[in-house]
Amino acid sequence: MTDRATAEALDRSDLLGPFRDRFVRADDRIYLDGNSLGRLPSAAIDAAARTVTDEWGRGLVESWSHWIDLPRRVGASLAPLIGAASDEVTLADSTSVNLYKLAAAALDAFPNRSVVVTDSDNFPTDRYVLEGLAASRGKEVRYIDTDPLLGVTADAVAEVMNGDVALASFSLVSYRSGSLADLAAVTDAVRSSGALVLWDLSHAVGAVPIDLGGAGVDLAAGCTYKYLNGGPGAPAFLYVRRALQGALHQPIRGWFGHADQFAFSRDWRPAPGIERFLVGTPPILSVAAAVPGIEMVGEAGIDSIRAKSVRATSFLIDLHDRRLAPLGVRLGSSRDADRRGSHVALEHREGLGITRWLRSAGGVVADFRAPETIRLAVAPLYTTFGEIWDAVEAMHEAVSGERWRDAGSAGTVT
Amino acid sequence: MTDRATAEALDRSDLLGPFRDRFVRADDRIYLDGNSLGRLPSAAIDAAARTVTDEWGRGLVESWSHWIDLPRRVGASLAPLIGAASDEVTLADSTSVNLYKLAAAALDAFPNRSVVVTDSDNFPTDRYVLEGLAASRGKEVRYIDTDPLLGVTADAVAEVMNGDVALASFSLVSYRSGSLADLAAVTDAVRSSGALVLWDLSHAVGAVPIDLGGAGVDLAAGCTYKYLNGGPGAPAFLYVRRALQGALHQPIRGWFGHADQFAFSRDWRPAPGIERFLVGTPPILSVAAAVPGIEMVGEAGIDSIRAKSVRATSFLIDLHDRRLAPLGVRLGSSRDADRRGSHVALEHREGLGITRWLRSAGGVVADFRAPETIRLAVAPLYTTFGEIWDAVEAMHEAVSGERWRDAGSAGTVT
Repeated sequence: MTDRATAEALDRSDLLGPFRDRFVRADDRIYLDGNSLGRLPSAAIDAAARTVTDEWGRGLVESWSHWIDLPRRVGASLAPLIGAASDEVTLADSTSVNLYKLAAAALDAFPNRSVVVTDSDNFPTDRYVLEGLAASRGKEVRYIDTDPLLGVTADAVAEVMNGDVALASFSLVSYRSGSLADLAAVTDAVRSSGALVLWDLSHAVGAVPIDLGGAGVDLAAGCTYKYLNGGPGAPAFLYVRRALQGALHQPIRGWFGHADQFAFSRDWRPAPGIERFLVGTPPILSVAAAVPGIEMVGEAGIDSIRAKSVRATSFLIDLHDRRLAPLGVRLGSSRDADRRGSHVALEHREGLGITRWLRSAGGVVADFRAPETIRLAVAPLYTTFGEIWDAVEAMHEAVSGERWRDAGSAGTVT
Repeated sequence: MTDRATAEALDRSDLLGPFRDRFVRADDRIYLDGNSLGRLPSAAIDAAARTVTDEWGRGLVESWSHWIDLPRRVGASLAPLIGAASDEVTLADSTSVNLYKLAAAALDAFPNRSVVVTDSDNFPTDRYVLEGLAASRGKEVRYIDTDPLLGVTADAVAEVMNGDVALASFSLVSYRSGSLADLAAVTDAVRSSGALVLWDLSHAVGAVPIDLGGAGVDLAAGCTYKYLNGGPGAPAFLYVRRALQGALHQPIRGWFGHADQFAFSRDWRPAPGIERFLVGTPPILSVAAAVPGIEMVGEAGIDSIRAKSVRATSFLIDLHDRRLAPLGVRLGSSRDADRRGSHVALEHREGLGITRWLRSAGGVVADFRAPETIRLAVAPLYTTFGEIWDAVEAMHEAVSGERWRDAGSAGTVT
C-alpha cells in the first residue's frame, strides 16, 4: 500500500463497482457524506418525474388507488434488508415521530414499570424523544455511559436492567463514532428482564446486515436518506414484531391507522396490523423518489455491501495510521471491523476548520460533529478506494498545511 | 340561464380564467375533486425536477443550507392566506400529527381542565386524535351535534363551554357538507371561557379568506394538497399565535424543535418560536413541489378566489335546483354563500354508484362520502362554469338514466 495504484487495484476487483454509474455525479468532488444524505440514484429522477407528471398530473385523485398502500409496499421491499417480514415494516412520518410513537406504545404497555434506558451518546433526537415521553408519564430515563469506541454493550446494558425497566432504546450504529452494537446480545440483555427494545437503525440500514427477526427485536425505526439513498428527508420506516402489533397502541390516532379508513366511522378502531402505526397522509413524491435507492440496495445485496464496507473502512484506517496519525489526527472509531459501521471518525481539535477546508477547497465532502469529530463515510455502492486514497491525501494537506486557517464558514449538517 | 351559453359567458368574464392554463390538463375530464387533491401546477414539475436533479443530485448534503428553513419559508409565504404573521406558521408533518401536537400542547397547558370540545361531524382524524389525547390524559371529549347545513355555530359552542374546557377544536369548512363556520364568532365563544381554540383549515385554506390574527385564533393546522395544489400528501402546516409560542410545549421532542439543533447538546431546550413545533427531518421533495401551488394562490389573491368560488357554487346550486332536484337529488350544502366553502354536497341514495359512473363513463371526477353525499368542488383557479354546466348535465343523465346500474367499482378516496 505504497501508492495510489493499490487503491486502483482494489477498485478494479470491486464487484459493486458497476453500481457507481447508477448514481448522478455532477462533478469530481469526493463525496464521503453518504451517512448524512445519500447520492441521487439516476432512476430516482424518473421515479419523481413519473409520480409528478403521470400520477399526480394525469391520474389525479384516482392515483390514490395506487398510492394508498405505497408506504407499506416500500416497507415490504425494505423488510429483507433488516430481517423483517413484509407485514412488519412500513414507511411513515420521520424517524423522530416514529421513535415517539413506538416508545410511547411501549411505555404505555407497562404502566407499572418506571424506567427508560438509553445511552448518553445516543443521537440527540432519540434522547429528546425519550426524555419527553418519560417526563410526561412520570418515568425516569436511565443513561448508560458508553465508551464511544465500543458503543452499547450487552454487559453495560445488563447492569442497568431490572424489573422497573419498560423500554430500552439504542442506535445500532452510533452517529458519531460509528460503533456497531451487537444487536442480538443487547436485545437479549433487554428482553431477559421483560422490557421491550427499540432500535434506531438510521446509521446502519443499507450498510450493515440486520436480522431483527433472528435477534427477537421488538421495535425499530430508521431513516431512508442515508445508505438507502432515498432523498432529502425521505420518509422514515418503522418495524413492529408481528406478535406485538395487536397488543401495542401508539398515541397518535390518525385516520391512516384506522381499521377502515374510508368508512369515516364515529369510533376509533385501530387497524389490526402494522397499519395501526400510521397516522396521516404520506408525502407521496418523497415516498416514490425513495423507491429506486431502496431497491438498489436489495439488488446489490447487503452482504456484498457489508463486505466492501469493511474492506473500505479498514483501508481508510490503514491510511489514517500511515499518513494522518503522525500529524496528530486520532482515530475515533473501532479498529474491530465487527464493531464498526460504515463511517470512520477522525478527531482533531481543528476538525471543524479542516472539514470546511475539505469542502471549500479540498474537493472532499465530509462532515463534522462537535467537538472534534470529522466523519468520513463509505457508501459501498458509489465510494471508490481511489476516492478514499485521495481524501486522506487531501486531509494530510489540510492538517500538515494548517489549511483550517484558510477555511470558510460553511455549515455542516446531517 | 337556459343554455350552456350562460356558462360560457361567465367564463369569458372570469378574471381568474388565465390561471387555468398554468395547470396540467392531460385530458378533457371535468375535475371537481380539487377539495381532495388539487391539480398539478405546471411550475411544480420544474420545482420537483430542480430539487431532485440540481439540489439533491448536484448540491448533495450542502443543499441543507437551503433546505433547513424551507418549511418555515413556505409557511411564511402561506401566512398571508390565513391572516397570520410570517413567524406564526410553518410546514411540518401531516395534518393529523400537527393536530396531535397542538392539541396535546393545549391540554397540557390546562392540567386542571378536563374537557375537550369538538363536533360529532368533524373530520374523522380530528376526532380520533382528540379522543386519543383525552383518553391518555383522563379527560373527556364533549361533542356538539351540529346541523350539517349550518355546521358549528357560536351559539352551539357557547352552550357547552365552561371553566372545565381546556380546548375546543373544529374544522372551518366541513369535509362533508362544506358548511363554513363563523371563525371570529366561534373563536370568541371558545376563548371567552378561557379555553384555547384549534382550527382545522384543511377544506378552507386557499378557497376562503381566513383571518386568524383578526379573530384571535390560538392554534390551527391544515393541509396543502387541496385548494393550495401542493401535491399528494404534501406536508401540512401549523399555526401558533405568537404570544402563545413560548408558553406551549408539544409532546414530540425532536431535534428540529431544539433551540440549537446542530449543537447536539445533552439537554432538551425548545426553540423559542414556531420552530419548537417541528419534530424531524421534513420530506424536502414534497415540500419543494408544494411551493408553486401555494404561491399561485397568493398571486391570484384570496378575495378574487373567494368571489369566483361563491359565484360558481351558487351557479352549481341553481343548476341543481333546475335539473337535479326534480329527479330526487337533495342539496346537502347551505344556500347561504356566507356559510359555504368551495364544494357543494349533493345527496342521493345511489350516490356511490352515481359517483362511480361519473368517473368511469361520465367524464366527471367527483367523490363520495358515505352514506349518500356526492361532493362537487369548485377550485377557482381552474374550474370553469362550462365544466359545472357539463357536470350537472352528466349527473342528470346518471340519475335520470339510473346509470349507477352500469357503474364499476372504482374506489373513492380523499
